[in-house]
Amino acid sequence: MNVGFIGLGRMGVGMAANLLKVGHQVTVYNRTPDKASELLKQGAKAASQVSDACRGEAVITMLANDEAVESVAFGKNGIVQSLPAGAIHISSSTISVALSEKLMQAHARADQRFVSAPVFGRPNAAAAGQLNIIVGGDPAAVKAATPLFEAMGQKTYVLSESPKAANLVKLSGNFLIASAIEAMGEALALVGKGGVDRRQFMEMLTSSIFSAPIYKVYGGLIVSGEFEPAGFAAPLGQKDIRLTLAAAEELSVPMPLASLIRDRFLTLLAQGGENLDWAAISTLAAQDAGFSDRS
Amino acid sequence: MNVGFIGLGRMGVGMAANLLKVGHQVTVYNRTPDKASELLKQGAKAASQVSDACRGEAVITMLANDEAVESVAFGKNGIVQSLPAGAIHISSSTISVALSEKLMQAHARADQRFVSAPVFGRPNAAAAGQLNIIVGGDPAAVKAATPLFEAMGQKTYVLSESPKAANLVKLSGNFLIASAIEAMGEALALVGKGGVDRRQFMEMLTSSIFSAPIYKVYGGLIVSGEFEPAGFAAPLGQKDIRLTLAAAEELSVPMPLASLIRDRFLTLLAQGGENLDWAAISTLAAQDAGFSDRS
Amino acid sequence: MNVGFIGLGRMGVGMAANLLKVGHQVTVYNRTPDKASELLKQGAKAASQVSDACRGEAVITMLANDEAVESVAFGKNGIVQSLPAGAIHISSSTISVALSEKLMQAHARADQRFVSAPVFGRPNAAAAGQLNIIVGGDPAAVKAATPLFEAMGQKTYVLSESPKAANLVKLSGNFLIASAIEAMGEALALVGKGGVDRRQFMEMLTSSIFSAPIYKVYGGLIVSGEFEPAGFAAPLGQKDIRLTLAAAEELSVPMPLASLIRDRFLTLLAQGGENLDWAAISTLAAQDAGFSDRS
Amino acid sequence: MNVGFIGLGRMGVGMAANLLKVGHQVTVYNRTPDKASELLKQGAKAASQVSDACRGEAVITMLANDEAVESVAFGKNGIVQSLPAGAIHISSSTISVALSEKLMQAHARADQRFVSAPVFGRPNAAAAGQLNIIVGGDPAAVKAATPLFEAMGQKTYVLSESPKAANLVKLSGNFLIASAIEAMGEALALVGKGGVDRRQFMEMLTSSIFSAPIYKVYGGLIVSGEFEPAGFAAPLGQKDIRLTLAAAEELSVPMPLASLIRDRFLTLLAQGGENLDWAAISTLAAQDAGFSDRS
Repeated sequence: MNVGFIGLGRMGVGMAANLLKVGHQVTVYNRTPDKASELLKQGAKAASQVSDACRGEAVITMLANDEAVESVAFGKNGIVQSLPAGAIHISSSTISVALSEKLMQAHARADQRFVSAPVFGRPNAAAAGQLNIIVGGDPAAVKAATPLFEAMGQKTYVLSESPKAANLVKLSGNFLIASAIEAMGEALALVGKGGVDRRQFMEMLTSSIFSAPIYKVYGGLIVSGEFEPAGFAAPLGQKDIRLTLAAAEELSVPMPLASLIRDRFLTLLAQGGENLDWAAISTLAAQDAGFSDRS
Repeated sequence: MNVGFIGLGRMGVGMAANLLKVGHQVTVYNRTPDKASELLKQGAKAASQVSDACRGEAVITMLANDEAVESVAFGKNGIVQSLPAGAIHISSSTISVALSEKLMQAHARADQRFVSAPVFGRPNAAAAGQLNIIVGGDPAAVKAATPLFEAMGQKTYVLSESPKAANLVKLSGNFLIASAIEAMGEALALVGKGGVDRRQFMEMLTSSIFSAPIYKVYGGLIVSGEFEPAGFAAPLGQKDIRLTLAAAEELSVPMPLASLIRDRFLTLLAQGGENLDWAAISTLAAQDAGFSDRS
Repeated sequence: MNVGFIGLGRMGVGMAANLLKVGHQVTVYNRTPDKASELLKQGAKAASQVSDACRGEAVITMLANDEAVESVAFGKNGIVQSLPAGAIHISSSTISVALSEKLMQAHARADQRFVSAPVFGRPNAAAAGQLNIIVGGDPAAVKAATPLFEAMGQKTYVLSESPKAANLVKLSGNFLIASAIEAMGEALALVGKGGVDRRQFMEMLTSSIFSAPIYKVYGGLIVSGEFEPAGFAAPLGQKDIRLTLAAAEELSVPMPLASLIRDRFLTLLAQGGENLDWAAISTLAAQDAGFSDRS
Repeated sequence: MNVGFIGLGRMGVGMAANLLKVGHQVTVYNRTPDKASELLKQGAKAASQVSDACRGEAVITMLANDEAVESVAFGKNGIVQSLPAGAIHISSSTISVALSEKLMQAHARADQRFVSAPVFGRPNAAAAGQLNIIVGGDPAAVKAATPLFEAMGQKTYVLSESPKAANLVKLSGNFLIASAIEAMGEALALVGKGGVDRRQFMEMLTSSIFSAPIYKVYGGLIVSGEFEPAGFAAPLGQKDIRLTLAAAEELSVPMPLASLIRDRFLTLLAQGGENLDWAAISTLAAQDAGFSDRS
């Protein structure tokens, strides 16, 4: 397929590269153009402005937050203005439920199609084409975009015909991950201060009842205390919990654990943790306990 | 080996049966003797009082709480008074760190040995010999008891020479499970009220980043809403969080997520949930959200 | 003084009436004009549109939320467009810190003056001229507006030359009130379920160490269980906690108690409490405890 | 009256002195006898053991915690064994609901009377005879003890014929105080980081809607940051919240704000705050926010 790709951060470069690998024609755009250089060697074309990435059958956006998506979607030469009728905007960024709804309506008014396709996976999974992709959108549009999902992910989950449902699911998934991080942080503060070897404790759990990637990846990170460089930085984690709580407020769903995690992120950021991986919120339980977290 | 087994609840019957299967001689004791009938057919001997189960090389206790363990361990004809010198008391109950320490000291004074061996797994895992056993104790005693662990569990984790460390680990593990239940409860209230199919949501997660037994077992329970009969009843869950918080208080480790879960259990019990599986705390987020939990 | 007054809700009517009483000329505007009838009898002039209330030395706005204030402040014939140079916009609504800052800048660009003057007090205090007024703004503008504050309030607190500081203080004050309500709710659930007379308990406290208006007023409300008609409705309380948390997030200040209160409001609203006084969040602790709150 | 007084800490010395002032005969006992010296000059008699303070019509205990009260009440030469039939044990310590019940039953079995009379007030109020006394007990016993209450307090509140109700009320009152401290801590972190003068903020509140002793006393302490010497030390505050939560657990009353405060105390103690006034938990919100608390 002939597609545009907007947003060449740590996730986007891997995703775009995987599109190229299976033969799609990819026109890439990034606010800071030098991020594109490696992809250009792999066959991508460079777009000098957003609209130049909107000439094909679809354009994929993979950006940091609502503001970044709004800045490329709306306004003069933005995606909504530039995309041909019938073409598909595939939004893979983790954005708010409200913005997802707004995009769907804007594209519908412009006779374009909108598919929400946020992903689970860190940069190494993006590079390996091993993302899990959550898809919400009109069935025909989803079907048309499927070759792209297959190139970028290991599995695609079509959960709803409503794009915003996919965003709600993505946010809820990130909330679940952050919850696991918080739980591990508290448990490790307890067993650590109680004299148990923290690494052995995590190995026991992740080789038995908690044998899931999330516990293995983050348990390892937490025990090692290596939060830099960040695979997923704390301000992004904080944003996702904010968006989760905003969606929950809109639906009148109280989420006390999400509130607790929100406060952890604010504490981490207030204490200078903006460059740390979001898993660093796990250190705060130990800090409160006056326990040095590093084994 | 010639062993006693005290406590024939839903977990104990399976564990004792597995000891019999591989040829150990097992003398069983239960406060209400009729629970023993099936085991007697399988070759167990009946003890009419606690001391009669304390004549062998080891005695295993698998009881509901501290009070039950104290009632068989101490006092006239109790374990400490009855066990031969050098014999081993293997405590598999989920008890407090403080009682574990007290038992260790009492057995040491009586020239007996004490091994703490709490288990992870629900009744079906106990019946299948698939428990994960956390062991803390003197290496020689642990080695002597290993054939018993092998009969009852799929894997044994020797984490410390201190029995109470095993109890701390067990409590922390249960805290992690309860945390996962709470997190799923909040996430499912959110996506459910947002119109997403709850079962599909859990299937997506447990076939990808949350592919661990805990999420599969409890995610399934939560989505189905089938909390009776209880595999692990709410009052037991509440007790374990109480013991976790007591251990944390002793060590000055604040655990806000554990506090949240404590409050969930109190709410569940205050509203008549004492016969429900502990996973039923997951319904409280939906209840607060005014969302009917059953799909 | 010749002033406009925009917003004739339960608070605004009392405030405007007190301005009339001491001889100010007041031109009143309300979206639904019939709210003005009583004030017109007392000598007020009616404005048929916002701009007609912006012809004097000052205009006071007392509206429900950010959206309402933005709708009268900005746009064609709005306050910013209509107010004469040098005239003062006195904002008494409980609005966000961010909107306060935005208003200050807009009025500065238009050579107008902006004073933030949120108030503490319920409708009966507004009617009695017994409000406590928190003022932030340029000293000269504050001085010019002082006769108006004296007419409407029992005391004026000039806390800062920055208008938004007054809004932060107002939000923090409301957070403190909501905190007291939550604390009373939990304490009354405990002593009530423990068999203590709840009314006597509150009388004891409010005649001794908690002898403050907040505890007397809200303690009485809570014990009587009379939450309708609402003096200050739950959605307004929820809004104020949302704005508090938004200001706190902007400043990276984690506020776990504010988060707890946020969840209480969402629960109350999810369960149909939108017409109740915000003090009704106090019933949720009793509800969780399975305790019937009415003595 | 001829009374014994056991427990000459910072509260007890003031209370005993006030009994002497109005002419009661007071025999004092303290574990470390030198605390009695000042009272002996004022006319008290010294008891060299607990039983020597149990020869009169009543004995008052004012001790730090359950353990201290149990150690003087039970066992050989303890209060229960020593007090004459019909004499009254007046327990003013802040103890658990469970111990209060246990004492009532023990004294009933020994044909003695038991009145629970915990107090509100810090050491300076005790010295000034300005305590508020919460009384639970048999009406005849309460009446007999009233002259003692009048000597020690400014007001007596007879809330129940059940002694343990008085203890529940006392614990709930302390929970309310701690809640106010936490709320002030969070609000002051917010306005402080937002550039508002913290002292002015508290003065505004305590001269208007929060004009209660609790807010004045603790608001002043918090703003000044002077937590040493402690009027009421953090470990005592932590104990009271523990006892509140224990009573709440017994009654199945979830108290999320009490849980939050519990965690604050554990954090404070884990970080070395055992000598600070309990109001020092207010500093933790500012610490989490990376804000230096001292103006």
